[in-house]
Amino acid sequence: MQTDETWQIRRTATDLDRLGETESVFALSNGWVGWRGTLDEGQPYGMPGSYLNGFHERRRQSYPEDGYAFPQESDTVISAPNAALIRLWVAGEPLDLRTGTVRVHERTLDLRAGVVRRCTEWISPAGHGVRVRSTRLVSLPRHAVAAVRYEVEPLDDRPVEIRVCSDVLANERVPERADDPRAASVVHDPLDAELHRPDGHRGVLVHRTDRSAQRVAVAVTHATDLPAGFTDGDDHTPDRLRTTLEGRLAPGQRLRLTKYAAYECAPVDGGTPDELADLVTAEADAAHRYGFDALLADQRATLDERWRTADVEIDGDPELQQAVRFSVFHLLQAGRVDGDRTIAAKGLTGNGYDGHVLWDTESYVLPVLTYLLPGVARGALRWRHAHLPQARERAAELRLTGATFPWRTIGGRECSGYWPAGTAALHVNADIADAVLRYVTATGDQEFLADTGLELLVETARLWAGYGHWSDDGAFHVTGITGPDEYAALVDDNVFTNLMVRRNLRGAADVAEGHPERAAALGVDPAEISGWRAAADAVHLPYDRKRGVHQQAAGFTEQPEWDFAAMTDDDYPLLLHYPYLELYRRQVVKQADLVLAMQRCPGEFTAEEKARNFAYYQARTVRDSSLSAGSQAVLAAELGHLDLAYDLFAEAALHDLADLGDKTSDGLHLAALAGAWTAAVEGFGGLRDDTGVLSFDPRLPARIDRLAFHLRWHGQRLRVTLTRDGARYELPDADPETTVDLRHAGEPVTVTGAAAVTRPLPQVPDPGPEPPSPHGRRPARRA
Amino acid sequence: MQTDETWQIRRTATDLDRLGETESVFALSNGWVGWRGTLDEGQPYGMPGSYLNGFHERRRQSYPEDGYAFPQESDTVISAPNAALIRLWVAGEPLDLRTGTVRVHERTLDLRAGVVRRCTEWISPAGHGVRVRSTRLVSLPRHAVAAVRYEVEPLDDRPVEIRVCSDVLANERVPERADDPRAASVVHDPLDAELHRPDGHRGVLVHRTDRSAQRVAVAVTHATDLPAGFTDGDDHTPDRLRTTLEGRLAPGQRLRLTKYAAYECAPVDGGTPDELADLVTAEADAAHRYGFDALLADQRATLDERWRTADVEIDGDPELQQAVRFSVFHLLQAGRVDGDRTIAAKGLTGNGYDGHVLWDTESYVLPVLTYLLPGVARGALRWRHAHLPQARERAAELRLTGATFPWRTIGGRECSGYWPAGTAALHVNADIADAVLRYVTATGDQEFLADTGLELLVETARLWAGYGHWSDDGAFHVTGITGPDEYAALVDDNVFTNLMVRRNLRGAADVAEGHPERAAALGVDPAEISGWRAAADAVHLPYDRKRGVHQQAAGFTEQPEWDFAAMTDDDYPLLLHYPYLELYRRQVVKQADLVLAMQRCPGEFTAEEKARNFAYYQARTVRDSSLSAGSQAVLAAELGHLDLAYDLFAEAALHDLADLGDKTSDGLHLAALAGAWTAAVEGFGGLRDDTGVLSFDPRLPARIDRLAFHLRWHGQRLRVTLTRDGARYELPDADPETTVDLRHAGEPVTVTGAAAVTRPLPQVPDPGPEPPSPHGRRPARRA
Repeated sequence: MQTDETWQIRRTATDLDRLGETESVFALSNGWVGWRGTLDEGQPYGMPGSYLNGFHERRRQSYPEDGYAFPQESDTVISAPNAALIRLWVAGEPLDLRTGTVRVHERTLDLRAGVVRRCTEWISPAGHGVRVRSTRLVSLPRHAVAAVRYEVEPLDDRPVEIRVCSDVLANERVPERADDPRAASVVHDPLDAELHRPDGHRGVLVHRTDRSAQRVAVAVTHATDLPAGFTDGDDHTPDRLRTTLEGRLAPGQRLRLTKYAAYECAPVDGGTPDELADLVTAEADAAHRYGFDALLADQRATLDERWRTADVEIDGDPELQQAVRFSVFHLLQAGRVDGDRTIAAKGLTGNGYDGHVLWDTESYVLPVLTYLLPGVARGALRWRHAHLPQARERAAELRLTGATFPWRTIGGRECSGYWPAGTAALHVNADIADAVLRYVTATGDQEFLADTGLELLVETARLWAGYGHWSDDGAFHVTGITGPDEYAALVDDNVFTNLMVRRNLRGAADVAEGHPERAAALGVDPAEISGWRAAADAVHLPYDRKRGVHQQAAGFTEQPEWDFAAMTDDDYPLLLHYPYLELYRRQVVKQADLVLAMQRCPGEFTAEEKARNFAYYQARTVRDSSLSAGSQAVLAAELGHLDLAYDLFAEAALHDLADLGDKTSDGLHLAALAGAWTAAVEGFGGLRDDTGVLSFDPRLPARIDRLAFHLRWHGQRLRVTLTRDGARYELPDADPETTVDLRHAGEPVTVTGAAAVTRPLPQVPDPGPEPPSPHGRRPARRA
Repeated sequence: MQTDETWQIRRTATDLDRLGETESVFALSNGWVGWRGTLDEGQPYGMPGSYLNGFHERRRQSYPEDGYAFPQESDTVISAPNAALIRLWVAGEPLDLRTGTVRVHERTLDLRAGVVRRCTEWISPAGHGVRVRSTRLVSLPRHAVAAVRYEVEPLDDRPVEIRVCSDVLANERVPERADDPRAASVVHDPLDAELHRPDGHRGVLVHRTDRSAQRVAVAVTHATDLPAGFTDGDDHTPDRLRTTLEGRLAPGQRLRLTKYAAYECAPVDGGTPDELADLVTAEADAAHRYGFDALLADQRATLDERWRTADVEIDGDPELQQAVRFSVFHLLQAGRVDGDRTIAAKGLTGNGYDGHVLWDTESYVLPVLTYLLPGVARGALRWRHAHLPQARERAAELRLTGATFPWRTIGGRECSGYWPAGTAALHVNADIADAVLRYVTATGDQEFLADTGLELLVETARLWAGYGHWSDDGAFHVTGITGPDEYAALVDDNVFTNLMVRRNLRGAADVAEGHPERAAALGVDPAEISGWRAAADAVHLPYDRKRGVHQQAAGFTEQPEWDFAAMTDDDYPLLLHYPYLELYRRQVVKQADLVLAMQRCPGEFTAEEKARNFAYYQARTVRDSSLSAGSQAVLAAELGHLDLAYDLFAEAALHDLADLGDKTSDGLHLAALAGAWTAAVEGFGGLRDDTGVLSFDPRLPARIDRLAFHLRWHGQRLRVTLTRDGARYELPDADPETTVDLRHAGEPVTVTGAAAVTRPLPQVPDPGPEPPSPHGRRPARRA
């Protein structure tokens, strides 16, 4: 693999049998508009998709046996009109890679340029050859804009009749999916046409949804560079804009079409169809005037700036270097720094999980973006804050206090259809509080804290204060909930949840005391604060003295074991082959849970407890969730099991690129991708932020020679480089007098803009043999 | 209330606003055919229904979030063609009680005659008066036959034009129900016509279902007694047979129509439509030849014989006397003694719970019928046995051993759509085993035990042996299941379940040792038997030493309490106003659970434990399930809280007659009705059968002067009479040399056919003050 390959992902004709997966891998997004990496011609496809952040339909949800407060409606992501389509006919035959002869077919996702390039040489069934090149981008600086440049040349020494149709298509047919509970439900023909306004090579469509009452508008403007003799035409219906170019292309001639699209969506009652049409038309026209080359240059410049902070350099494992850059790229393009938007579990890369936002955002994605693009974290948390009214309503419906944020949602209301692993996973509320505290710790953004963060902390603290239960012995219990591990449900005193509740309560208390006027305006008084502190201090953490380990939840270590030795590869993921009845009552763990608690709250455990707990749960965790590997890698690294950590790191980084879960076609698992960065930076870098002090306890795995990464801390860009010679800390952009205080292996270090600081890597005590994983479930060996 | 009123239920025109409830109360059934108590003219109705035992359609069942082994189809009861319809036009205006003037309208359910009689005097909007009388029966001795005698007379002193249409109608429209999780799902037009064969006033319809592949045939034959000048005609479609009588009825004249219907259903692949048509035609014709008066006489004779054993006599509370007879009547007509049929939770009285069979049958209904009509208990258990193949398949699907019987079913497969309160309620398997043991203990039916009972015991024992978990301290645990209380789910070591598992395992061991050859043929060897005994001995029963009570399930008494003081009547049933999230984790009990354990397994608790447990759980049990009152009454009576017991007894007996649960319109709650007998006989009679010896420990509540009941024990009819003077035991039908050994208040007593035995009522020690019920949930005071 050449060095350059680590900055790009290539797929060729041999990958046509995994189109769905490639569409996800090649998805482009700017956090507002997302285009899956479909072929220009639209066919063949895995699952076409053009998404706008938050654009969805609502559908009725029914239960064989209904129950009180079971959500009766669910949000589901739907495609906006597809403006990426450019179809080609060659001497009357449609370009379709399933027909004729594909001489060359290569698509490349350029991680620095932020574009997908395509080159295809195709011989039609009748023997006419053409070369098609295209470049597609979704503009990072211009939120509404996506664009394609499309070129056709003849390959033969004779002219060929060419027809190009550039379409915008609403209500594009999408295939049914009925395979497993993780797939999206499909809404057919969800868009009702409101306006179509053709204007030569320009045009705009406005549609609306029925139940969610959202309006979507898309405008396109075409620039053409045509050989003489070509004719053009336009043809429009309420669901389709079409611009057609027809003519004869002689050898050496080239047809070039550039298409600028702009998307907006808004609530139906927020304006008129004409207003929205005018807005997107202006945006598309502006992009047209600016020009494709200028868009490309801006895209590159934006990404260059982002990569300055975001790149993780790994010397010695180019495949993993590529995978980590791929992972980070998708995180960088998933969110917006300029609006109050969140990031769904699959971003805008697919319709898996119905396009829902889950705890993945606050628990996996924001802990990365807080350090790379803190504005995205702020926006996502402001999005939660904007949905506090729905969270308060949900709490009231559930007869709870404070706010109860949804387990799954797009529009802010609970959409989960299986409450034991949905509504009962109340920890999402503490996860949001944790993300608030982390963001403020890393940025010092006091304005956000006062405006937004405090209220989120207070309302979630109120949930726990009301929900928790004081036992006679003075302990505070959180019972009947579901923790991170989805192979358990409705448990008592899940350690992860309880520790996060502790943090939530203490964070709310600290911040309320720090902002007494704002707190008073929220009705917080000293008695409430002291109640939070008392509960936080008394949170119960179940511990098995006999086995010397914490219990993931009360009684866990006394449950029957799972017969891992009897499992084959075909038995995984277990949830598709075993009933919850068996999974829930046994010691089988889908994903890091107690291990996640040790990652998030490292100060709550001694080193010995961590070692014993890690070994115990490593042996029982099957990683049927893509969320798991990154967290396990962090603890494995901390405990000195560096080979295991490295292999888990690789599993996280390769999850989608190698489609390890066989689900990448539904969209990328952003939390797994975040896990790659987390494994590198929290794992090998040893980053911890739970005490408010930036701390590193680095380890360099044997497999690589150098690991370098950056992160933003209170506006500064800190660069960390690990080699065998030590850990180097520097502030490349800072004035000489700027300082950042941090800890290296427990010792205070002050880095200044004037000089880098280098410290030897800490000696890791021999951790003993690698703790066994469940039979057949150790990650692939790479270290 | 006159004495006779205790043998009948009357409804008048004032009850027209509760038609659905009346249809259930007046439902007639013979365990094979069930007709709801609709008006002859079909309109107005609450929910029409003509049911055949086991006749159902299957429908797809989908989940917002699907899971492994979630049932993808569900059985749902559907109506057979309705042959009860007889419509009347008076001078061209249809008889409809919502129009014109209703001068008299009275319907009576005669509990001894087994018929519903109706008398209506109606003045049409145009002023024509008629008197309509009808008598309806569903023949107990002739399983296929139902019949109506219908008479019309003019009330005026002038002739009136009369038209009578007697219909058989398939795919009758039924109203939608979307109110709560307990209602039935409706399948529209479920019947496909296969054959309609008109033959004058006779006719037959044959239909089939689509997915369940069942065939249903109904034949009718009419006998008419018409004044001169009447014309008759017939008119048939594939979904409707119609016989029309038209003419002028002069003062003093009377039109009489008698309609004989016969029903059969069978699997589609079990024969041809013609064969089934011939069968029902022969059955209807035979009933016609036999005549309506003869059918009435047989009905009365059959019921007289059943009442000889079944009547419970209560002196001093005629309303309750009536309610108890009503309750017993519906039990007597719910099952068949001559076929391997079971009894659904609502029998054939309505489509609530989708017509499903639940644990109600083995746990509530069979414990009564075992003593009143043991053949019905045998048939129901043989029905379970016939579905062992599906239960073994289900166990394999769930990765369990032995057999796993469904929580809800009609055709034998699991239909439950909410697994935490369905599949997880594995106790149904032990409940079936318990019913086997009780039936054999009471009857001595060794042939059944060898043929049927042993295999049921063995396969359910195998479930527990594989499912249970041995902890390090040598205890046997049953974890992750749901017990009787549906306000808890997925608990560990539910005491009721564990004690029933103990009984199941020991019963299987005992019976296998008693039938070594049959056991060997089932693969049972001594090692398996000793494994069962070891597990039974080691079953864990969680006990709270501090509070001195058993825990309904592990940890129950440490859970947060429910704030009963904050509840109003509108908050009940709690499941419609509070989420499972709150219900499951708190000490709120829907229905007798630990109390049921004490009822079923009285020898497992000391008297002191019972008293403390009863007080503890009485304070936390809200009786949101109709199953509860009877069991609570039994324990209240045992402990000497006779007023409370009496009030609970009345609640069980009046549950449907007074529509206490507001759900009677969906069908009668047979388990609640059984609870009335149970409260009387197990509660005040003190009947216990868990040791294999028939035992009584009677108490006579202050409110009544005499309580008498009978039961069958090894073929003998034992009569028990309680008065202030003592308890009298006698064998009225027996030869002088016949003896029955029993216990009275713990002392052995031998009753012979020669002489009754009388013993003083035992002195009940002062139980102290009545244990409080949850705020506002004490049963209505009556004692």
